[in-house]
Parts: sequence; C-alpha cells; structure tokens
Amino acid sequence: MNQKGTLIVLSGFSGVGKNTVITQVLAQRPDIHYSVSFTTRAPREGEVDGVNYNFVTREDFQARIARGEFLEYAEYNGNFYGTSMKVIRDNLDRGTDVLLEIEVKGAAAVMAKMPEAVSVFLVPPSFDELSKRLHARGTDDEETIQKRLAIARQEAKEVKNYEYIVVNDTVDHAVQEFFSILTAEGCRKERRIHLVEGV
Amino acid sequence: MNQKGTLIVLSGFSGVGKNTVITQVLAQRPDIHYSVSFTTRAPREGEVDGVNYNFVTREDFQARIARGEFLEYAEYNGNFYGTSMKVIRDNLDRGTDVLLEIEVKGAAAVMAKMPEAVSVFLVPPSFDELSKRLHARGTDDEETIQKRLAIARQEAKEVKNYEYIVVNDTVDHAVQEFFSILTAEGCRKERRIHLVEGV
Repeated sequence: MNQKGTLIVLSGFSGVGKNTVITQVLAQRPDIHYSVSFTTRAPREGEVDGVNYNFVTREDFQARIARGEFLEYAEYNGNFYGTSMKVIRDNLDRGTDVLLEIEVKGAAAVMAKMPEAVSVFLVPPSFDELSKRLHARGTDDEETIQKRLAIARQEAKEVKNYEYIVVNDTVDHAVQEFFSILTAEGCRKERRIHLVEGV
Repeated sequence: MNQKGTLIVLSGFSGVGKNTVITQVLAQRPDIHYSVSFTTRAPREGEVDGVNYNFVTREDFQARIARGEFLEYAEYNGNFYGTSMKVIRDNLDRGTDVLLEIEVKGAAAVMAKMPEAVSVFLVPPSFDELSKRLHARGTDDEETIQKRLAIARQEAKEVKNYEYIVVNDTVDHAVQEFFSILTAEGCRKERRIHLVEGV
C-alpha cells in the first residue's frame, strides 16, 4: 500500500512566531517538504532562490498558470505570487508530508481544492502577548504595529475555518502540539483501515 | 472558560495488549479518570472493587437503570454489566479526561450517545502477530485461541466506526500515538476558538 503524504496548511498572525516554529519543525523532521511559493518579484538582499521563494520570470509564471499548476495565485503590487499544486502533489504522491505556510485567503483556496489538507492556525496566548511580541521585535514603528494588530483582528474571524489551533506560548510546546497533530492525523481510520480489511 | 474533559473510547481485539497500553497511559497521566464498569456478578479471586469493576447488587444496578445512569448496559449469563454515564459526565464536567475501555457493541452505544467522544481502536501490526501473541500468552488452548481470532475477524468489520486506529507494534509507540491523539484533540478548533473570539 502506497501511503500518501499529509499536506499541512499553516497560518498565523503576523508576529506570532511562525518562522521560529517552522524552523524547529523542519530541523526535527527534515523529511518534511516545505512548500516554497513562486514569485515574479525580484529577490531582496539575502533572499535565496528555492528557499525564500522560487524566483521566476513573468513568462514562466504565466506558463504555469496556463498549465493549471497553481493551487492559488494572486497579484500584489504588479508581482505574481503563487503556490504550485504540482510540486505539492508530486511530494504527497511519493509519500512525503508537505508543510505550506500561507495567509488566510490563500489557505481558504488551498482547503477548498484539497479538502484532505490538515489546517493549523498558530495563535499567541493572548492578543496582549501578540502586541508585546510585535513591540519586542523592534522592527516596526507604532503605526505599523497597530496596522498588524488590526489585520490580526480581521484574520481572527477566519480561524474558525481551520481544524486545529496551536498556541505558541513556548516554541517547544507549539512544536510538540504540531507534531502531535501530524501523528494523530496519521492514525486516522481512513489512513489505516487497510490494516484490518480482508482479514 | 471552564474547559470540559475529553472522553476517549478505547477498543481492541482480545490479545492485542489493551491492558498493557492502558497501564502505561495511566502511569504517565494519573490525572486521567479510568472508567470502571459496574457489574452484578461476584468478584473473582484477586479482583478489586472499584479497580476491576464496581461490584454492586442487582437492586443497586436496577436503581441505576431506573435513574438512567448508564450509557450502555447488557446482561450476560444472568449478570448485568454497565457503564455509568453519570460518573463519566461528572468527570468530564470538572475538566477531567476519561478513558473508557469497552468492546465494540458498547462502544457503538457510547458513540451514539456522546458523539463528542474520541474513539480509538487498538490493532496488532498484523493478524499473524495477533495469533502469535495469543499463543505466547499460553493461557488459552488452541480452540479458545481460534475462537478469539474468529471474534477479532468479526470485530474488524466495526473498526471503520472508530476515528483513530493505533498500532500496538511496541507499547511505547502505541502509548505515544495515544497521547498524540489526545493532544491533537485538545488542539481542535472547537476547543480553542474562544482564544481568538471577541478580540
């Protein structure tokens, strides 16, 4: 029996600590394929092709659209951003688990097209804590922080569309919850019923 | 917010190693309430009231039936056996997780009455392995073993009604899967959405 991989869709508020959690998850499970978005925008300083984004030309991107390769794509500020369904499916088909970090609108599109995806939303212990973390980063001015918090409050309304909510109180705890979800999903009846069929 | 406990319904084939797994689970999580059945039969040698069963009189049992206390009950060989819904609900209400080990028919009755229960079926890595384990116990003659295997083949048809299948290849692995399921269930959107509501 060729068992397919699990697609995990991960979203979370800006500043909640998604990157730290993802880094830990991939360090402990390097076999997980981390899905990297495609974009037509130019790489910023320090960004690495294939790591931060797959940087492609506009022609390449449009050819992928025409071939129906994207699970979802959008244009912001004249640049395309998209998630390749082909890369994800190829990995799932060969039994590799795939982690896709994506914002709420993109996540909704992915869940609609791949309802078997496992969706996880990462939240802070509280909104006060989120505000504290955004201030502690020291990278944004007050106006930007308030804007991020306002976006988070909007996104909070979409959290009900996710199956799981992981609380990032400590990174270790969040990572442990993440892996528990992945293990539990692997124990689902649908994935294991073959063990007792036809006996 | 007063969070309710989780009810875990555990079934598994005779000889699969349910007791060993349960003992380990309760050793690591003594806060879990292990639901003990009520019975009117006399205790066998070594059986402890409140541990193996709650041994009650026929009158007591019938009074509990009349009060609607049982999630399910049945009569075998002139003795009553039943699972007290009251004890389970009291524990769940005070936030205690409850583990209920029960055979497939009783489990179906429990799941019908408490659809929020998390159901887990414990399977051996294979039926050959189950046969080996039953022989290795050395407690049953060949006829009894064949009868147990025949019952297991019947029960196998009911496994599709459970949400999760845990493979008891090693006890540690089975216990780890069990706890992952419990953790993941605690991360379900339904149990945590209050964290992002009204922000």
